[in-house]
Amino acid sequence: MYIALDAMGGDYAPTCNIEGAVKFASEYKTSVYLVGNKSILEEHIKRQNLDISKLPIEIVHAEETIGMDESPSIALRKKRNSSMHIAGKLVREGKAQAFVSAGNTGAAMSIGKFVIGAAEGIERPGIAVAFPNKKGSRTVLIDVGANVDSRPRHLLYFAVMGHTYVKEILGTSDTPKIGILSIGEEEGKGNELVKDTYPLLKMTKLNFIGNAEGRDIFTGDFDVIVCDGFVGNVVLKTAESLGTIILEMIKEEVEKSFISKVGAVLMLPALKSFKKKADFTEYGGAPLLGTKGTCIITHGRADGKAIKNALKFASEFVNHDFNNKLLQNLNTLIPMELIRAKEEEIQE
Amino acid sequence: MYIALDAMGGDYAPTCNIEGAVKFASEYKTSVYLVGNKSILEEHIKRQNLDISKLPIEIVHAEETIGMDESPSIALRKKRNSSMHIAGKLVREGKAQAFVSAGNTGAAMSIGKFVIGAAEGIERPGIAVAFPNKKGSRTVLIDVGANVDSRPRHLLYFAVMGHTYVKEILGTSDTPKIGILSIGEEEGKGNELVKDTYPLLKMTKLNFIGNAEGRDIFTGDFDVIVCDGFVGNVVLKTAESLGTIILEMIKEEVEKSFISKVGAVLMLPALKSFKKKADFTEYGGAPLLGTKGTCIITHGRADGKAIKNALKFASEFVNHDFNNKLLQNLNTLIPMELIRAKEEEIQE
Repeated sequence: MYIALDAMGGDYAPTCNIEGAVKFASEYKTSVYLVGNKSILEEHIKRQNLDISKLPIEIVHAEETIGMDESPSIALRKKRNSSMHIAGKLVREGKAQAFVSAGNTGAAMSIGKFVIGAAEGIERPGIAVAFPNKKGSRTVLIDVGANVDSRPRHLLYFAVMGHTYVKEILGTSDTPKIGILSIGEEEGKGNELVKDTYPLLKMTKLNFIGNAEGRDIFTGDFDVIVCDGFVGNVVLKTAESLGTIILEMIKEEVEKSFISKVGAVLMLPALKSFKKKADFTEYGGAPLLGTKGTCIITHGRADGKAIKNALKFASEFVNHDFNNKLLQNLNTLIPMELIRAKEEEIQE
Repeated sequence: MYIALDAMGGDYAPTCNIEGAVKFASEYKTSVYLVGNKSILEEHIKRQNLDISKLPIEIVHAEETIGMDESPSIALRKKRNSSMHIAGKLVREGKAQAFVSAGNTGAAMSIGKFVIGAAEGIERPGIAVAFPNKKGSRTVLIDVGANVDSRPRHLLYFAVMGHTYVKEILGTSDTPKIGILSIGEEEGKGNELVKDTYPLLKMTKLNFIGNAEGRDIFTGDFDVIVCDGFVGNVVLKTAESLGTIILEMIKEEVEKSFISKVGAVLMLPALKSFKKKADFTEYGGAPLLGTKGTCIITHGRADGKAIKNALKFASEFVNHDFNNKLLQNLNTLIPMELIRAKEEEIQE
């Protein structure tokens, strides 16, 4: 197995990317392509006093780098010699089985969708985020932004991707409870997309349990919640931002009094443990499910440990033969003939 | 001015509703119609040792009550003698200027939309929630669930409603910064609805500053963010639920150690002050903007103080002549002719 790491993507690249790759390769004996500007990488490796000569790490030269603010089309069409584009190409060509980037999220998604390309049986890949929930488990929200304006059939695929992700990778359920994000719990509540998708989901062999509301992302009553990428992305960004602002507001209140400050110091270990548990963005990264190879997009703030975790996370998809399992599930859980008939009925 | 209070709606009705009405009427000398089952209300007033004889409170009998789980259509068509329906009718008939309910949210929205009805110039009312933001101000999200599948023109109206709400009621800005909820900051990013609405918003005289992302609900960079009711409702419920779960998770971590518990006790005043600030659901309630009279929907958990606040909140809309200001703003800020032409262009 080879994992192609975009060594130049992320706020702390290439320093932390190199550090993460070295830690991962030494600990798990798994091969990494370090894709980036060769002379810069070699200089950094030297400066960081690292020796990669005995590790399964290979530098693959890439002349260019995608900036954090550059548009996806630049990564796709203009900078074909960028570290991100070349890392994607290594997967498309079968030289690597997984792609990991902490760079520009929009660009990385495009590389996943169009350079690596959709997996067999899939029309549109979707990004999944595993939120921590009240029951101490995880709830997967998919799609959180790889697509806008999805059609019912795409949400169906997201459901199978989410099912396979929970069952094979997270391991939190063998029969994941699937829901569709809506407003109101009862069948028939929601917008056009939800109303059209609901009957299709009912026809699958998935453990579909109905509409989920915004609050259900955290209740633990669902293992997977599907939605279109527009709604999913808004929800993800709202949740990330609200988490941060709540901690900031608590901090601000605490700083108003000496006693509170003492209290906060005593509470520190508890708060830190909470923060770690709640930090869903750092959980290895978010997989873009449904691509030909594994594609992990991790946070721009990723440090060495986060990069190592992302590489480890990517290797789990390969080790569990995720894409084959996904294809099997598509074939066994979705009665495509029935669904096509229903789709035609909806369109009429 | 008369405010019609649904005395039977809410988890603690009619006890807290009566308590809130009495406090409000004594403090602000403003008249309240207490709408509900007369004998039950009189019995409760007696039991609570209250005397309403010298207060501007009038009981209006309503035989039925809408249950918290009954569908909006029951409130609209079947239970026409319910406290909620009769309170709405008092506004429609001009006998009251404002409607307040802590009952079944879906039912209250329907009463607002169809019994009270849309204000002049408005096609569809929208529910607004004022979230606290990092700058210590408020960001209004509208619509958070009065409609699903909105069209561009409706979002335009939501923008004017939000503008008027911020300027006249919240008083946090004279030229409210308006955004449209999307994914990605640049013009052209988003789903079909956003892409079609963006050029229309640019044509208005509103202070439209572009796309807002999920995180911007809390940054304070926007005073008003418009969205369709499906997305808005999902966001609202996600935010409410996440706020609760974060506090619960912190509590759980704290309880694991004695030192943390001591810390938490010392931090208590700070945490309480934070909780008060963050409790956006208790901020008087959410106004359903764009109805013929004022329509305030408050939380089912509303206690006496919350009911008093909701009544006070409702009276502010009447005192500030909100609906006339809204109509003026519609006429002066939206160049309808231009927008109609643009709409036709979009449809082609």
